[in-house]
Amino acid sequence: MSVESDRIRPPPGGVRELPRINEHYLSLNASYLFAEIKRRTETFRRAHPDARVISLGIGDVTQPLPAVVVAALEAAVREQARPETLKGYGPYVGYEWLRAEIAAHDFGARGVTLGPDEIFVSDGGKSDGASIQEIFADDCVVALMDPVYPVYADSNVMAGRAGPADESGRYAGFVYLPCTADNGFQPALPDGHVDLIYLCYPNNPTGAVMTRAALQQWVDYARAHEAVILYDAAYEAYIRDPAIPHSIYEIEGAREVAIESRSFSKNAGFTGLRLAYTVVPREARGRTADGETLSLNELWLRRMSTKSNGPPYVVQRAAAAVYTPDGQAQVRALTDFYMENARIIRDGLTAAGLTVYGGTSAPYIWARTPPRQSSWDFFDKLLVEAHVVGAPGAGFGPSGEGYFRLTAFGSREHTLEAVERVRGRLT
Amino acid sequence: MSVESDRIRPPPGGVRELPRINEHYLSLNASYLFAEIKRRTETFRRAHPDARVISLGIGDVTQPLPAVVVAALEAAVREQARPETLKGYGPYVGYEWLRAEIAAHDFGARGVTLGPDEIFVSDGGKSDGASIQEIFADDCVVALMDPVYPVYADSNVMAGRAGPADESGRYAGFVYLPCTADNGFQPALPDGHVDLIYLCYPNNPTGAVMTRAALQQWVDYARAHEAVILYDAAYEAYIRDPAIPHSIYEIEGAREVAIESRSFSKNAGFTGLRLAYTVVPREARGRTADGETLSLNELWLRRMSTKSNGPPYVVQRAAAAVYTPDGQAQVRALTDFYMENARIIRDGLTAAGLTVYGGTSAPYIWARTPPRQSSWDFFDKLLVEAHVVGAPGAGFGPSGEGYFRLTAFGSREHTLEAVERVRGRLT
Repeated sequence: MSVESDRIRPPPGGVRELPRINEHYLSLNASYLFAEIKRRTETFRRAHPDARVISLGIGDVTQPLPAVVVAALEAAVREQARPETLKGYGPYVGYEWLRAEIAAHDFGARGVTLGPDEIFVSDGGKSDGASIQEIFADDCVVALMDPVYPVYADSNVMAGRAGPADESGRYAGFVYLPCTADNGFQPALPDGHVDLIYLCYPNNPTGAVMTRAALQQWVDYARAHEAVILYDAAYEAYIRDPAIPHSIYEIEGAREVAIESRSFSKNAGFTGLRLAYTVVPREARGRTADGETLSLNELWLRRMSTKSNGPPYVVQRAAAAVYTPDGQAQVRALTDFYMENARIIRDGLTAAGLTVYGGTSAPYIWARTPPRQSSWDFFDKLLVEAHVVGAPGAGFGPSGEGYFRLTAFGSREHTLEAVERVRGRLT
Repeated sequence: MSVESDRIRPPPGGVRELPRINEHYLSLNASYLFAEIKRRTETFRRAHPDARVISLGIGDVTQPLPAVVVAALEAAVREQARPETLKGYGPYVGYEWLRAEIAAHDFGARGVTLGPDEIFVSDGGKSDGASIQEIFADDCVVALMDPVYPVYADSNVMAGRAGPADESGRYAGFVYLPCTADNGFQPALPDGHVDLIYLCYPNNPTGAVMTRAALQQWVDYARAHEAVILYDAAYEAYIRDPAIPHSIYEIEGAREVAIESRSFSKNAGFTGLRLAYTVVPREARGRTADGETLSLNELWLRRMSTKSNGPPYVVQRAAAAVYTPDGQAQVRALTDFYMENARIIRDGLTAAGLTVYGGTSAPYIWARTPPRQSSWDFFDKLLVEAHVVGAPGAGFGPSGEGYFRLTAFGSREHTLEAVERVRGRLT
């Protein structure tokens, strides 16, 4: 013990050395997209308290939880009220009964065999998307679709895999894979070597899907170049075209090179309930600097065991109910409801003269902004003139500039009214 | 696009470069303590299916959720069943109505003024304990109590702030602060400069508390040396001595240098429900390499906004119910119940001839193992001979060797029987 007095003075000479912070945070763009959308919306609402603002911006659900989910929650809450049935800490990676249901229904039913030990349940797709990079080295080269859900880029910036962004928002060090109308929102394979490839299909924000042949090409590329694909399939329940794969593991050779994430947020409406999972097959491997190879499954298990206690028991029970026959029917009805919204938005915007993509196997409609309007300008215009909140394409990446996202997750009434208002302003 | 064929072959020469993994994981000790306890217990159970094993090892609760919490959960589930009251995505850092209750009751009632924007709600103390290090630089020097809850060490090893452990389990690069009977489980101040200091009081695993004067000395040290204290107060509800501070912010000068975490797991029995929070005062700052100082509150806000969507709405409603008058009374009854278990364990082990610490303002009893028995030996002995699961002191750090932890979180019946069995084997 170096100090004897009961009060300590600063060291002589006044050397003050606050702990150094993670300076990679300083490379992040000024604000997180959805936080900025919320901020602008709140500012407008405060200035115009009488305006009935309709939000089709953040991809949040509006329909209540399916009845089977509510019933399962209620039953699970009752269990937590009695000592005989109380559940305390659960398995770090989720209860096995839930992981077995996931394996059987989300994969087995499509001819994909997964073990429960390859499935890791978490509190959300955002957490999984942000955390999966932790098991890889800091110097891995990251390829990202552009535009795409911002969490992949942001979490890798925070980990030091990229430097500050240029004016267009493009971080230094990432390999961007532009997805625009010019290439049908299908990224080209990278030119040089990359280690990690984030793919998201059905895509957020463009609403595009990827064909089996195209996905096979990515798996083959990853096998040839020893890259790992981080496949975000959060919106697979919206696929309506039977030829489109729901899981990357439907593709030959994917088990060695692909990690897939899914969420209960958008199929069963769990945005406020929080549940997701990530699949890390036993065959997926990484390497050390010495060339030794290691199981990514074991690394992710260690990560989740050390940093998590798993999601709430009651929420896991709710998720398991989704796999009952009634649950499957109710989820289908829910996604059908939102897909009808998608059709309404597509048709309405098209009638208003906009060029529209997505919305046929995805709950997002991706529209071109009118000529000479940036995506944030168009965001502000719709907010101020139509009191409709969307999401500016540029917020999802530089190649999103000139586009605008609307979600199909509104109520029917709001969706119809929002489309009517937008038409009124544009035609 | 570098590839034209529809199937891609490995590059000529067979250069295969799997993505590099985060090799810091390889520095981790072989297994996470509680996972290893579970593993040994399961192995024993499978070999002895008729043995009635009593677990006082993992600090998991056994009493049901308080009635107010159950009622709040049920009401919140009903809200989620109707479109008018559905809650989707919540604030990234928790609902303000919950943060306001926390500020008023956990702090305001003790004369500590905190703003809701200084409180960050999360899905658990384990997550917060593991993640808070992310906002600091990789080269920060970390000081840890020894023994202590393993998550602080493990998360910093995974981030690269320490190298592999020696035989005793001591990682290279950490500054260990031994806490043994010799110093009354009160760590000495570090000799050299440290950046981050993890303190946990009431302590897990030793059950020790820290006096106001001692805590003032730590705050003064942190102010003089510009260190940040990460103060884990997960067990504050068990403090029975009115002279002991419940929050580090009761100490003069702490707002500039201390981050405090709390949990609903042990006061209100949320181990299976998952909720916790971390306080980052506006005055707490870190620095860049250039000497610029930044708000740690803003960094943590960015971290949580980018990587989390907040805990489930229903769980946040449940937590808010804890602050009602009935909730406070029920939580007090719950902690009183467990503290009676603590008394039973203390008295029983003392009668069995063991030297016992803790258990008077903490739900943990920390006992010396019998002469010439290591803590894992004693773990195995109690498991095999008494069918009682504890937690070996060495699992919490090298200075835990020669000690053993029992928790007061069992049922009354199991606690009485476990103590009886242990006495039977030791006397």
